[in-house]
Amino acid sequence: MSQFIRNGGRSADQLREVRITRGFTIHAEGSVLIEFGNTRVLCTASVEERVPPHKRGSGEGWVTAEYGMLPRSTHTRSDREAARGKQSGRTQEIQRLIGRSMRAVFDLKLLGERTIHLDCDVLQADGGTRTAAITGAFVAAQDAVSRLLSDGLLTATPIREHVAAVSVGIVEGTPLLDLEYTEDSACDTDMNVVMTGAGHYIEVQGTAEGAAFSRDEMNQLLALAEKGIGELVALQTQALKAPLVK
Amino acid sequence: MSQFIRNGGRSADQLREVRITRGFTIHAEGSVLIEFGNTRVLCTASVEERVPPHKRGSGEGWVTAEYGMLPRSTHTRSDREAARGKQSGRTQEIQRLIGRSMRAVFDLKLLGERTIHLDCDVLQADGGTRTAAITGAFVAAQDAVSRLLSDGLLTATPIREHVAAVSVGIVEGTPLLDLEYTEDSACDTDMNVVMTGAGHYIEVQGTAEGAAFSRDEMNQLLALAEKGIGELVALQTQALKAPLVK
Amino acid sequence: MSQFIRNGGRSADQLREVRITRGFTIHAEGSVLIEFGNTRVLCTASVEERVPPHKRGSGEGWVTAEYGMLPRSTHTRSDREAARGKQSGRTQEIQRLIGRSMRAVFDLKLLGERTIHLDCDVLQADGGTRTAAITGAFVAAQDAVSRLLSDGLLTATPIREHVAAVSVGIVEGTPLLDLEYTEDSACDTDMNVVMTGAGHYIEVQGTAEGAAFSRDEMNQLLALAEKGIGELVALQTQALKAPLVK
Amino acid sequence: MSQFIRNGGRSADQLREVRITRGFTIHAEGSVLIEFGNTRVLCTASVEERVPPHKRGSGEGWVTAEYGMLPRSTHTRSDREAARGKQSGRTQEIQRLIGRSMRAVFDLKLLGERTIHLDCDVLQADGGTRTAAITGAFVAAQDAVSRLLSDGLLTATPIREHVAAVSVGIVEGTPLLDLEYTEDSACDTDMNVVMTGAGHYIEVQGTAEGAAFSRDEMNQLLALAEKGIGELVALQTQALKAPLVK
Amino acid sequence: MSQFIRNGGRSADQLREVRITRGFTIHAEGSVLIEFGNTRVLCTASVEERVPPHKRGSGEGWVTAEYGMLPRSTHTRSDREAARGKQSGRTQEIQRLIGRSMRAVFDLKLLGERTIHLDCDVLQADGGTRTAAITGAFVAAQDAVSRLLSDGLLTATPIREHVAAVSVGIVEGTPLLDLEYTEDSACDTDMNVVMTGAGHYIEVQGTAEGAAFSRDEMNQLLALAEKGIGELVALQTQALKAPLVK
Amino acid sequence: MSQFIRNGGRSADQLREVRITRGFTIHAEGSVLIEFGNTRVLCTASVEERVPPHKRGSGEGWVTAEYGMLPRSTHTRSDREAARGKQSGRTQEIQRLIGRSMRAVFDLKLLGERTIHLDCDVLQADGGTRTAAITGAFVAAQDAVSRLLSDGLLTATPIREHVAAVSVGIVEGTPLLDLEYTEDSACDTDMNVVMTGAGHYIEVQGTAEGAAFSRDEMNQLLALAEKGIGELVALQTQALKAPLVK
Repeated sequence: MSQFIRNGGRSADQLREVRITRGFTIHAEGSVLIEFGNTRVLCTASVEERVPPHKRGSGEGWVTAEYGMLPRSTHTRSDREAARGKQSGRTQEIQRLIGRSMRAVFDLKLLGERTIHLDCDVLQADGGTRTAAITGAFVAAQDAVSRLLSDGLLTATPIREHVAAVSVGIVEGTPLLDLEYTEDSACDTDMNVVMTGAGHYIEVQGTAEGAAFSRDEMNQLLALAEKGIGELVALQTQALKAPLVK
Repeated sequence: MSQFIRNGGRSADQLREVRITRGFTIHAEGSVLIEFGNTRVLCTASVEERVPPHKRGSGEGWVTAEYGMLPRSTHTRSDREAARGKQSGRTQEIQRLIGRSMRAVFDLKLLGERTIHLDCDVLQADGGTRTAAITGAFVAAQDAVSRLLSDGLLTATPIREHVAAVSVGIVEGTPLLDLEYTEDSACDTDMNVVMTGAGHYIEVQGTAEGAAFSRDEMNQLLALAEKGIGELVALQTQALKAPLVK
Repeated sequence: MSQFIRNGGRSADQLREVRITRGFTIHAEGSVLIEFGNTRVLCTASVEERVPPHKRGSGEGWVTAEYGMLPRSTHTRSDREAARGKQSGRTQEIQRLIGRSMRAVFDLKLLGERTIHLDCDVLQADGGTRTAAITGAFVAAQDAVSRLLSDGLLTATPIREHVAAVSVGIVEGTPLLDLEYTEDSACDTDMNVVMTGAGHYIEVQGTAEGAAFSRDEMNQLLALAEKGIGELVALQTQALKAPLVK
Repeated sequence: MSQFIRNGGRSADQLREVRITRGFTIHAEGSVLIEFGNTRVLCTASVEERVPPHKRGSGEGWVTAEYGMLPRSTHTRSDREAARGKQSGRTQEIQRLIGRSMRAVFDLKLLGERTIHLDCDVLQADGGTRTAAITGAFVAAQDAVSRLLSDGLLTATPIREHVAAVSVGIVEGTPLLDLEYTEDSACDTDMNVVMTGAGHYIEVQGTAEGAAFSRDEMNQLLALAEKGIGELVALQTQALKAPLVK
Repeated sequence: MSQFIRNGGRSADQLREVRITRGFTIHAEGSVLIEFGNTRVLCTASVEERVPPHKRGSGEGWVTAEYGMLPRSTHTRSDREAARGKQSGRTQEIQRLIGRSMRAVFDLKLLGERTIHLDCDVLQADGGTRTAAITGAFVAAQDAVSRLLSDGLLTATPIREHVAAVSVGIVEGTPLLDLEYTEDSACDTDMNVVMTGAGHYIEVQGTAEGAAFSRDEMNQLLALAEKGIGELVALQTQALKAPLVK
Repeated sequence: MSQFIRNGGRSADQLREVRITRGFTIHAEGSVLIEFGNTRVLCTASVEERVPPHKRGSGEGWVTAEYGMLPRSTHTRSDREAARGKQSGRTQEIQRLIGRSMRAVFDLKLLGERTIHLDCDVLQADGGTRTAAITGAFVAAQDAVSRLLSDGLLTATPIREHVAAVSVGIVEGTPLLDLEYTEDSACDTDMNVVMTGAGHYIEVQGTAEGAAFSRDEMNQLLALAEKGIGELVALQTQALKAPLVK
């Protein structure tokens, strides 16, 4: 089967250009604009000195996430969820995924009885918003934790390792890394993979949009994802090296 | 690592006892009680001779699913979602999964402009409700389609192949097939796999509850799931052989 | 006026076949499947060791009920109330009726500061779901109380007497006991009666669907209801005699 | 048992002072302030030249009711239902009762494809708001129909007969007609009765608040209600005799 | 430009007939029916001996308002907000305005930790409902405070001065005081002004409905409003002189 | 009274630094990031080729606005309105104000039967978000209209003139232009003024937060606003001069 040609001559196993801007807004303890090509997600980390009811008195903290898309972040305008009065099933699914992914690398005991809220708001969408959100939220969470450490509220970091995510999929028979919107719409199989810096899986969510996929195809997709996430973790590391000037 | 001991001497790669009762209630075009051990889900298939707005005039049909748990299907009583006034994120996630899984084996053109509603209501929960729901909903959908065929409303079946689902997970280092509730609560990794009768993947959803999991562990889990789904498809086939007496 | 002919040769003052299955599900403190002919309602009683705000600190307990119909328990599929985001007026009316009926035979002081939740979910509907629900909920509540007594949480039963309910109505001029769906749809007058084991009234709700009804007709309906409820109380008593094996 | 002494020396079978003020507000086709003693309900009838979906194309009209209490119509302030975002179960039960009661005396064919909305808003509550609402709504509906007749939109009245309602109850062993709030709070049995001008029943809703009630007690209550409703129908007739000056 | 002719020969700077009826209903601590011509608003003041969360432990009280229109207070029937399940943006805007206006003349410290709820319900609408509501709510609040003083719950009044409100607008080039509905619908500019008894501004809300307005037009409108509010304050004072007989 | 000292040596009648970035996101027909100092609002204009029900068949278009704040745009995190399930009264008030302000400069006939949706989302808040939103939304609307003109969908612009807005207030006795958050929190009087490019008023909303304000103070505030809006209109004009490169 002939190879699918990507926009801008991108190769099948190549990430879009990734930009991570820390300190994008001034109020949040962590505030990161992450861009995967034209996908732009603002991830803020807010520290609250209390926990939800199921953690009260446990000595443990909590990490949770919310996700939203601005109405015109997409090609055609979507209804505003606040105006409709409820979040869609898709929104809830994504914010639950982000929350689980972040908690997987947090030691909630070390966090102490406080909550980190991660708000991931899509300013512009071009595919991969949930994976960009996870990758950016990690950096925002790291900045919030650094602040807690420098303020003396924490003495040891509760973050055990990096977490990052990427989408992979099969378009016209070609396995591709980091799908943009036109690829995502055309793909037969779509998989979102969340991994740790050490290369282990936190979440794998693969869906056959068209034909069901084989074990061999899954293996190719997992290999692509592993490569991409390795690069994303390196980009996170590099972004976090610079001092944060606010 | 020593092997985890399962209830009732079940081996690691063994399904719970599966029972499929067709014609469980009288009004629905398809009505199946499916039991995976103590998990009992009532799956009904209802045919409606119209389609939702996004399909009107398309010549295509639609297949959709809703999921619910009776308040005391669980160990402790949960709030009734109708009384709370909204479905939880978990409920929405599950019913979206069931709907996608069923549509993956349906030819919507052949279905014509009608909708099949699959209602999956958990009467008793002991782990694996979503995978039991998918496996049972397929049988209910098949009965509804048979009725459409025998009534002359369809001349060819829109169902391309079987679909079934099972959960797998790693508990205390042991990969296990078809987790019951106590195993599910204790597991480090939990994966729901949906496959076709031909052995291809429709959905793979793996989540690290505790430690992240390795590629090798994923491979073991996928092999277990493949074995279990093969057996479930055989059980569906056998259940569908008997004539349906209502 | 000629007599209305009922399905299956049932006489005007005859109940449908009533079946009461205790221990229908495993988690609830009381779990009863009650069948009035083709009407099947699952009634569970759940004990919670706390009370709603208006009873806190009162030394008294609370008994409350919720009611629901599975979407395809009926001839044509109804919307799922959880998905619509609110319970219908009919649902609320019925669950308020069940709750009042059960509280009428409970000594809330003797119950102590705990709540019994009665969940009545209609698996299959063929008329009389609310009266079946009340009759079955009593048996489930009795099982839950027996458990509290045998666990030593109660030393005296808070249940003062039996409660059961039946519908009566006038169809084509004939007063009938225990209406099934086709009779209910055709009736001019519809009355639901809730009585104690001692033969006193807890609720009488009579509605003229077509022509208004006379005092004489009301008297005939009340006599039919009294007969039917006497039989239902005997069936409850008999069902409760057997030991509950779970 | 000694007789219960009522406020103001009212006898057990005596209505409170009833006042019916037609044309209380200027915009509605029918607008009636009805007072049962200190209970004051504003009942408006609004004519809309279309019907709800289930009546479209049927050639028949519809009559429906809504009920509300101003937040401080009661002894202590209640939450505003519009602010809470939903109507209580009690409110829905009452407005369904008013709607059914009014439809029982309407020939919907003769009404033609239009809707009469009856809005019953309690300005001041002192027991019996739902029975006052039904009694007043009839007068408002009659005025709206008279307007339709005089405007030539109807040629024959769709109203077949009067409808009125009253509460009865047993307080400290004494059967009483038309309960005021303090009586209602203290009563063992509470019954709302809706009857036609011809003396037939439209609705009977009796509830044991304390002890269950006997057949003999029910008979006494029904007799009281029949007397009261006869007087209310006479008061409606008298109020409707005067020309309506707006 | 020729002068706009008002209904009933009213001059451009003339209020409609204003009637203030205290003690209109019996339960509320303050209950005032205020009429601006055909606009009739029932304003009740309810005292609650607790404060909302943001005032707890502050030693200060709270004053808040809610606003509603009966469905048929208007020319054509509006949906009931309680039935629709939410208050409109207009309703919220108005009740926030009333609340702010009342708090502007209250010393919350002197009120102590209690809440005054002002409920303003429009029985009949003919323009200017929000300004009538503010003017009437002041009188109701005054009566509630008088009751607190006479009951010894307060020793000094927390009300610092009068507050009243009126609408002004430009219709066909003519600046008018106290717009009625037909004027309001036709006006180019609509302004609601809330002032203290001492002649200072609490709120000014001017909106160009058609053409934008000039500074000169604003000055004329403010002068009209000042005149009208002066008269309304005098009417409040006069109404409050009479002893309140309930 | 001594003069209030502003941050950064800003004079009392000086705007904060205003930046207008067109083409901030790629999908919307108009997309503007407007900054008033640290306040940053993303304003998008989306064209939809249909109108809401009240305009259908009228030959006229519609212009409407929605407003939102990202949860951590503020000093402390606010609840996400989509998660809470409803927009606050404040949000609704602001989006109604933006919509009215924009419609005041639009000729809806010339727009034709299409809708322009203006979405104003606050990325970072430091006072004056609603006035920045109006000022930025105008530029976004202008870009959307230019696109309609260049696409030949419009032949004449429906925009009659500029609209811009600014806040003014009195802090510690000093009238100030364009309040930032700390000033807004401390002010006695707060006024939002919306004006056309020609210097006429569209909206004036003045509120006494502390003491009521005098006519003289209002005059000073209006003069400040007029100066500020003149400058904002000049900035809009300048921003719109550059060609829009997307």
